[in-house]
Amino acid sequence: MRFTKMEGLGNDYIYVNCMEGEPEDLPTLAVRLSDRHFGVGADGLICIKPGRTGDFTMEMYNADGSRGAMCGNGIRCVGKYVYDRKLTRKTCLTIDTDAGPRGLELAVRGGKAEQVTVDMGQAILYPEVELEAMGEQYTVHQVGVGNPHAVIFCPDPEGVRLEELGPVLECHPNLRERSNVEFVSCQDGHDLHVRVWERGSGITLACGTGACAAFEAARRQGLCGSRAEARLPGGTLGLEWREGRIFMTGPARTVFEGEIEMG
Amino acid sequence: MRFTKMEGLGNDYIYVNCMEGEPEDLPTLAVRLSDRHFGVGADGLICIKPGRTGDFTMEMYNADGSRGAMCGNGIRCVGKYVYDRKLTRKTCLTIDTDAGPRGLELAVRGGKAEQVTVDMGQAILYPEVELEAMGEQYTVHQVGVGNPHAVIFCPDPEGVRLEELGPVLECHPNLRERSNVEFVSCQDGHDLHVRVWERGSGITLACGTGACAAFEAARRQGLCGSRAEARLPGGTLGLEWREGRIFMTGPARTVFEGEIEMG
Repeated sequence: MRFTKMEGLGNDYIYVNCMEGEPEDLPTLAVRLSDRHFGVGADGLICIKPGRTGDFTMEMYNADGSRGAMCGNGIRCVGKYVYDRKLTRKTCLTIDTDAGPRGLELAVRGGKAEQVTVDMGQAILYPEVELEAMGEQYTVHQVGVGNPHAVIFCPDPEGVRLEELGPVLECHPNLRERSNVEFVSCQDGHDLHVRVWERGSGITLACGTGACAAFEAARRQGLCGSRAEARLPGGTLGLEWREGRIFMTGPARTVFEGEIEMG
Repeated sequence: MRFTKMEGLGNDYIYVNCMEGEPEDLPTLAVRLSDRHFGVGADGLICIKPGRTGDFTMEMYNADGSRGAMCGNGIRCVGKYVYDRKLTRKTCLTIDTDAGPRGLELAVRGGKAEQVTVDMGQAILYPEVELEAMGEQYTVHQVGVGNPHAVIFCPDPEGVRLEELGPVLECHPNLRERSNVEFVSCQDGHDLHVRVWERGSGITLACGTGACAAFEAARRQGLCGSRAEARLPGGTLGLEWREGRIFMTGPARTVFEGEIEMG
């Protein structure tokens, strides 16, 4: 089976062209291929299929074989995949996902997509809560971006002991539901510095919805305007608010092409 | 650049055919390719070059770009690589490494090498030492197999808190030098169960020299005879003592073929 390894901000998936048929038992395949020592190694498997109502469908499986609904870093690579391989000539695309259709805008140079903008939809801001964790008080901004986020502003996210606070905050009873956690600073009304604890995964290099949640909380607090940049450990994302929707721009990169014997 | 990802007991390297020339700046390439999110992902890079006095040369770089002398799991894959690609017809080979030449014996089925036996050379047993770590007393068998090992026998290696004891024992002042640490049980005079803490790396799936060190210590204690099997988290290795030398047998597997754009 031929595959392509791609990454966006270090969030890496194995991409397989399923436009004309697909391998059997995708959950098992995702587990096998995602293993970083015995397999190809990835955060999961993304199958590119014909669109249902949109141009293409992205079907996503996590490294544990579970189905993933949507991934902001993954869907950018889907845009690059279909454009660079000339499966489409369009630079504005709609990708069907398990979380609904998502619009993409591709910035192309030399026949290849370099940066991809994703319409991440609306962010919902819930009332803020005060809570206590490991002996400290925190003001938490709860934001829904398809999945739930708990955003905490602080002067220095690097100084936060996230590996200890993350698991406590993720499941804190004062939150609406089990949440991703972001510690965020905002400088010059534009530069967000974001560290993310992903529920179920821990500290990750980048989380697209986490960047959107941090942006929405900062915007509503008046800490930034309708454009910002979010700096995460894996790289930087551009964020823009247009008529109630958040548009996220970032890189998509092909790492290598591979072929693996099945069975 | 074309490459092959191979693994032995989960110890995975990127193998590149350098019989007719090699890429520039191999240390930098090793760092870039070994990254598990932004690169191919591996424990390091192994270049296969013409032999100096042996049949082929294995030139090895760790994921941090440092030069590696020898790797028992890696050299088995070198044997499979050169045989499966018909770079040789021989099933008994000598591979030049930075730790000296090493003999290989290939077990072939259907034109492919499946199991590979490596002559790991002599193991040197040093006087045992008693030491204390985290409030407990340990009897440590120090063994040199090219690199230094501290072998500790215990009834249940799985029950050992290796992530805490490993770093303390690795640098213990009573040891001859900074050492790899193995907790080992031996059953039925044949079955070794080995958990390894590798100096500088931590808990790993498998360590070929660690298995040899555990075998030599067990053999000299009369816990096993001249043949044994070592069960490690990544898989099982066969061990045999012949005329003062240790021969280690294990699997070698091609995971996938890849092509990556350079520059």
